[in-house]
Amino acid sequence: MKGLWLENNQLQLRTDIPMPEPPPGEALVRVLHAGICNTDLELLRGYYPYTGILGHEFVGIVEQGPECLVNQRVVGEINAVCGHCRFCRHGQPSHCENRTVLGIVNRNGAFGEYLCLPIENLHLVPDNVPTEVATFTEPIAAALEIQQQVPLRPNDRVLVVGDGKLGQLVAQTLALTGCELLAVGRHRNKLANLEARGIKIGLADAVKDGYFDISVECTGNPEGFAIARRALRPRGTLVLKSTYAGNLSLDASSLVVDEITLIGSRCGPFPPALQLLATGQVDVQPLIHATYPLIEGLAAFKHAQSQGVLKILLEMSK
Amino acid sequence: MKGLWLENNQLQLRTDIPMPEPPPGEALVRVLHAGICNTDLELLRGYYPYTGILGHEFVGIVEQGPECLVNQRVVGEINAVCGHCRFCRHGQPSHCENRTVLGIVNRNGAFGEYLCLPIENLHLVPDNVPTEVATFTEPIAAALEIQQQVPLRPNDRVLVVGDGKLGQLVAQTLALTGCELLAVGRHRNKLANLEARGIKIGLADAVKDGYFDISVECTGNPEGFAIARRALRPRGTLVLKSTYAGNLSLDASSLVVDEITLIGSRCGPFPPALQLLATGQVDVQPLIHATYPLIEGLAAFKHAQSQGVLKILLEMSK
Repeated sequence: MKGLWLENNQLQLRTDIPMPEPPPGEALVRVLHAGICNTDLELLRGYYPYTGILGHEFVGIVEQGPECLVNQRVVGEINAVCGHCRFCRHGQPSHCENRTVLGIVNRNGAFGEYLCLPIENLHLVPDNVPTEVATFTEPIAAALEIQQQVPLRPNDRVLVVGDGKLGQLVAQTLALTGCELLAVGRHRNKLANLEARGIKIGLADAVKDGYFDISVECTGNPEGFAIARRALRPRGTLVLKSTYAGNLSLDASSLVVDEITLIGSRCGPFPPALQLLATGQVDVQPLIHATYPLIEGLAAFKHAQSQGVLKILLEMSK
Repeated sequence: MKGLWLENNQLQLRTDIPMPEPPPGEALVRVLHAGICNTDLELLRGYYPYTGILGHEFVGIVEQGPECLVNQRVVGEINAVCGHCRFCRHGQPSHCENRTVLGIVNRNGAFGEYLCLPIENLHLVPDNVPTEVATFTEPIAAALEIQQQVPLRPNDRVLVVGDGKLGQLVAQTLALTGCELLAVGRHRNKLANLEARGIKIGLADAVKDGYFDISVECTGNPEGFAIARRALRPRGTLVLKSTYAGNLSLDASSLVVDEITLIGSRCGPFPPALQLLATGQVDVQPLIHATYPLIEGLAAFKHAQSQGVLKILLEMSK
C-alpha cells in the first residue's frame, strides 16, 4: 500500500508498504483523511527518533473489527496500551509504560492507506460531523486535557500564547468556560479567526504582566514561554502545551518566590472533543488551509512548513 | 543598637543603628535568638538586592504592643502586608503586592537587638518550647507549605532531595503523613539525623528513576533538580523549595510528554509549625550546630557557610 514513510529524518512516499494485518484486539481501518500536526514536523526534524509511517490525526472506515464498527467512520486515540502496567491499572493509560503511539512511537501511523489500532481506541464519528472536521478530534482532545488537569473557574483570567493550530483550538475550548480569555500571537490574520468568534485577541508583546491566573504556552519557543510566565500573577499556573526543541532556560527562583505552578499537558479525552464538533461549539473550518492527495504528500508537508499556514490535510483515497 | 547590617553585599556589625519605633499596628520586639538561613547567605552573595539588618528566623519578647503580648515570647511571620491589594483580599497575603519582608525586602530584620513587625504577624510561643527550638518555626512553616499546595496521600511515594537544614525539616514534616518517604543527599552524617528518626535515607545518585509520585527539591542546585525530575513517574509533582542562583535549564518537552507538574513553594503557616514543635513531632535539636553572641555575628556567618554545617543561631542579649 502507499504511505508517507519517515526514516533517518527523511520523508518519502512509498508504494511498497505491506498491508497491515490487525493482531487480536485490533481493528483494520482504511484511512479517509488525516491532518499534519506540528509533532509530525518535529519528528521530521529529528526531535524524537522514529521510523515508519507518520501521522496520528485521522478519520477512517473500519474494514475489519467488531460488527458494530465495520463500515463506520471512526477516529482513534493514539496511545495503544498494555492494560496491566501501574499506569493502566491506575486509570492513566496515556502514560502506559509499554505504550506504542500511532505514528510517533513504534506503531505505523495514519499517513498511509490503512492502519491498525486497538478496538478500544476507536470512537464513532457522529453523522453530522464532516470527515475533514473530525480529523481535528485528536488536537481538540489535547486542548481539553488542560481542563482535565487544571481546575478552571468562570471568573479566571486566562491567556493563550500562540496563534497556530493548537493555540487556536485551545483558545476556542477555553472560551467555552466563560473565563476572561485573551489569545495572543504574532499574526493578525491568524488571530482574526478567533476574533470572528468573539474571542479577545492581542499581540504577544502587549500582554499585561502579572495579570493572569492561568497561561497556556502553545508556541514551543522560549519567547512564548517568557510571555506566558511574565503574564502570571503569583500562585498562577502555566500550562506547557507544546514541546520544545532542546532545553528551556528559566528563572526557577522566581517560580519559588511567586509559587508558580508549571504543568505539562499532552493527550486528552476523545468523547467530549467529538461532542464539541457535533454541536458546532468548536469551529475548525477556518483552520483548514489545504487538502492534498496522499500521492502529493511531500508537497503537503512542504506547504505545512510554510510561514502562516495552519492545518494541511491529506486525503488517502486520491 | 547593635545589628548585622548588609550593604553592597558586605555584612558588618554596626553598633550605631537607631532603635526602631513601631508605627501604628506594629509591635516592638526584643530579639532573643535568631537563626541563619540559606536565604541570608544568598542575600550576602547578592542573589537579591537588599540593604539593612539581615535575618528573618527569630524568637523575641514583645516590649511594646497589645497588653496580651507584652513580655511574652513570640515568633513572627515575615511578610508585612498591605491588607487591601488583590492578594490580601483573596486570602493570599504572603503574595501581597506591597509587602515588605523581614530582613529580605525593605524591612530591617532579626539580626539586631530589636525589630518591628505588624501585631497580626506575631504568634505566642508555647511555654514548653525552648527559645532555640522556636527559632525553627519559620522554616518548619515553609516546609508545611508543601502540604498546603500539594494534596499528599498516605500511600504516595515521596522523595526529598537535599540533606541540608530545609531538606531535613521537609523530610521530618512529610514523614508525619505516613507516606513512603525517601530522603537523599550527599552527606552520610547529615542523613544520620533523619535515619535516627526512622526515615529511610539514601545517597542521591542511587534514586530509582520514575518511581516517585512527588519529589521535593531542597538543594537549589541543578544536579538536585535533575535527580528530583528523573525520580518522578509520569504525572508526578516536583516541588521547588529552594531558590537557584541564575537560570535553570530543563527539558521542557519531557515535562509535556510526562505531564509533570512543577510547583514553587515559599512561606507557610505558623500555627501548625508551632504545634509540631510543642508536641515534639519535629525535632530540631540535632540541627543546631552552634550558637554565637550577636557581637560575633561575622564569625557566625563564616561558620554557617562552612561545608557540612547545619543551623547556626545568634543570641542577641550576649
